[in-house]
Amino acid sequence: MIRHLLSAADLSHEEATLILDTADEMARLTEGRAVKKLPTLRGRTVVNLFFEDSTRTRTSFELAAKRLSADVINFSAKGSSVSKGESLKDTALTLAAMGADGVVVRHSASGAAYRLATSGWISANVLNAGDGTHEHPTQALLDAFTLRRHLGDLRDRDVVIVGDVLHGRVARSNVLLLATLGARVTLVAPPTLLPLGVENWPCEVTYDLDAALPGADAVMMLRVQRERMNAAFFPSAREYSRRYGLDARRFSSLPEDAIVLHPGPMNRGMEISADVADNERSVIVEQVTNGVYVRMAVLYLMLAGSGTGSAGGEDAA
Amino acid sequence: MIRHLLSAADLSHEEATLILDTADEMARLTEGRAVKKLPTLRGRTVVNLFFEDSTRTRTSFELAAKRLSADVINFSAKGSSVSKGESLKDTALTLAAMGADGVVVRHSASGAAYRLATSGWISANVLNAGDGTHEHPTQALLDAFTLRRHLGDLRDRDVVIVGDVLHGRVARSNVLLLATLGARVTLVAPPTLLPLGVENWPCEVTYDLDAALPGADAVMMLRVQRERMNAAFFPSAREYSRRYGLDARRFSSLPEDAIVLHPGPMNRGMEISADVADNERSVIVEQVTNGVYVRMAVLYLMLAGSGTGSAGGEDAA
Amino acid sequence: MIRHLLSAADLSHEEATLILDTADEMARLTEGRAVKKLPTLRGRTVVNLFFEDSTRTRTSFELAAKRLSADVINFSAKGSSVSKGESLKDTALTLAAMGADGVVVRHSASGAAYRLATSGWISANVLNAGDGTHEHPTQALLDAFTLRRHLGDLRDRDVVIVGDVLHGRVARSNVLLLATLGARVTLVAPPTLLPLGVENWPCEVTYDLDAALPGADAVMMLRVQRERMNAAFFPSAREYSRRYGLDARRFSSLPEDAIVLHPGPMNRGMEISADVADNERSVIVEQVTNGVYVRMAVLYLMLAGSGTGSAGGEDAA
Repeated sequence: MIRHLLSAADLSHEEATLILDTADEMARLTEGRAVKKLPTLRGRTVVNLFFEDSTRTRTSFELAAKRLSADVINFSAKGSSVSKGESLKDTALTLAAMGADGVVVRHSASGAAYRLATSGWISANVLNAGDGTHEHPTQALLDAFTLRRHLGDLRDRDVVIVGDVLHGRVARSNVLLLATLGARVTLVAPPTLLPLGVENWPCEVTYDLDAALPGADAVMMLRVQRERMNAAFFPSAREYSRRYGLDARRFSSLPEDAIVLHPGPMNRGMEISADVADNERSVIVEQVTNGVYVRMAVLYLMLAGSGTGSAGGEDAA
Repeated sequence: MIRHLLSAADLSHEEATLILDTADEMARLTEGRAVKKLPTLRGRTVVNLFFEDSTRTRTSFELAAKRLSADVINFSAKGSSVSKGESLKDTALTLAAMGADGVVVRHSASGAAYRLATSGWISANVLNAGDGTHEHPTQALLDAFTLRRHLGDLRDRDVVIVGDVLHGRVARSNVLLLATLGARVTLVAPPTLLPLGVENWPCEVTYDLDAALPGADAVMMLRVQRERMNAAFFPSAREYSRRYGLDARRFSSLPEDAIVLHPGPMNRGMEISADVADNERSVIVEQVTNGVYVRMAVLYLMLAGSGTGSAGGEDAA
Repeated sequence: MIRHLLSAADLSHEEATLILDTADEMARLTEGRAVKKLPTLRGRTVVNLFFEDSTRTRTSFELAAKRLSADVINFSAKGSSVSKGESLKDTALTLAAMGADGVVVRHSASGAAYRLATSGWISANVLNAGDGTHEHPTQALLDAFTLRRHLGDLRDRDVVIVGDVLHGRVARSNVLLLATLGARVTLVAPPTLLPLGVENWPCEVTYDLDAALPGADAVMMLRVQRERMNAAFFPSAREYSRRYGLDARRFSSLPEDAIVLHPGPMNRGMEISADVADNERSVIVEQVTNGVYVRMAVLYLMLAGSGTGSAGGEDAA
């Protein structure tokens, strides 16, 4: 039912809701079960094509695919000597020729998943697992899933997203998807960590975290990408933490039902204090669990009806 | 029915034909099916023992084994500090002791697979996935399979193999297997990229590519191993391409049914031009697909009847 | 029936015997069978969380889990940039949130597995696959299993353990487990390769290998950790070999039924001579085989009854 998942921007309200409802169903069928495996994708092959390391994301997709009984091939393209453009095309052709049904791709270049899906190189379904600073749609879906489980319908809910919007792809995907789902989003970031064109995103932008918190139903703290920072962007970690970190004082200014999200891994003491991270209203660990359900849902919706075999083509084993 | 697959030279006409026929059957049973999995090797363990990186070849074997429902263990020996001789023996003993049924081995030393299979260290079936500059028999089999699908019986067919014969193992395995299957092979290479003893191979050798093409049923372009080249072997990439590359002009001198093969990954613009690579008579992507069928066939013929259990020893699950 | 396996010291005589008896059963059900797979842990997920490389141990656990039909995720944490303490906690939380049923952990810090199991971070079963110089309980169990297969009941049997006790975890785990099983253990090592507090271990300690051998039912040679040695510990490899190596002369002083063990990989010519290593009374290769049975047993006893699902929660596939 889904051909590719490249961007949160591509999802209509109906499609996003279908994915989230399917993820609910995946949770219902596996949560708390000793046997967390469904036979749905038996005989299908999912390739994790990672041009960048990301053990967490790769593992989440691997688990999701295995729970649906798919075969998983981890294809780490890191360190390959071929130039990027060539490598992507030739690798794609190779994987398609080997019979991959779905390709989960992580790449440092924005737009890599789009090229793979739209270039006509392969017939496999393509799932963007993060492309440069562009998009990370399953992260946005798992965040929306987590928000929906706690807040119900997201229409007119207030979500505050805080931190390094410039270097991450999480904020962009979340703003786009949450807007589609009817939520009101406020971005809080230092001016030097906002991308060009943010004024066209469907959200508010402010520099004042303290002003944004009292009205929030949920606050999402972004990971500070230390390695991408330098003095030109921000004076110091301490200064960052003082102005944009979520500590106990700021946490207490939130409405009492508000929840706290973080895509992980956290820099405890930097963008979030340890006590807030471990507070029961932090749903950060739950986000990881939900990531598996959402990825199961997307893989299911992509691959369960795919294949060119007739209805009688099922494995007779 | 096959004990080990170490060298294309070891295969009789009957054995090679059995493998190719079995690969046809694997294609028939899985091609275009939504569920591409067969239960044949359930409960068998295949170890990919790679002393050299080769993501493509490893992935092809992994997919082939998983489609036959075998368990696959990827055992990367790269970076191990033990000395080569010791490492191979001790690793072999370890894998055998753990119960590996088949060992797919890739090693930088010519003869490594032979040592593994013939030293008495292990009882597992050994499959050579490339040993130094010596042999790569499943590559030759998938090339022969691809040729046979397009040309029918290979007897008296003319196959031209072009390029760096010295540093690769593909040419040697292909020459030996194609000769066994009755084809006439012509090697075209600069004198500095021919190995000692090539005069004893069952093929013609020439330096003149333009003269060889008009009579070819198929032309196989070898990958230039840039990393193994140096000025002593050849003046420049441009000069190589001018004299031994397959470009549009040369392609037009081929008979109109002739096909183009390349083991991949290609250096587009070097040994093959981009337009020739993407021409419909290039079967390069199909070779990758066929690689999985051929490897399924070899693993099946090696492992389906193996094991020391009685007929009643099947998994009762 | 087993919650965690962190230390050989934690095992009572009854628990250790249960594991060894279960390993016997695993051997009986799979040894010599063409299909070596049992359906016991289908739908369970085992994560190999390796902060240190150890291809052998990881492969043994991977094979053991796959033979029980569990899904296996290899999660290599090596090279992760996060600081160690944080990394362990956050990684543990992530794995638990993803639904890991069992976590096999290898870490360079002594006590890492304990922290993981006892900190309340995760509900998964934890299996220590080696923590620093502290413990490696499945190694001790596979050694005891191997000894029991050859010697029968270990009560009052004499086991001599020789070599670098200081830098390894094998000696400590073996001494503790063998004492629990009623064996008499003698450690033979140069004074500089004995840890502080060894006088409190339940064993004898001597510097004289030649005096210890004639009464031994089994002798276990430890691997010399060359990389952890320096001149302060020992004068030279040759001197070590002369004083603590097991060569043909010393081997001949053993009782005629005595067996030789080594945890591997061996330094042939250093702590053990090649002819002794390959002697039929060396059970070193058999230890590797037994490692898979013992790990199957531990995973089975940990995970077969686990899960929060009702009895009806089994996979309906």
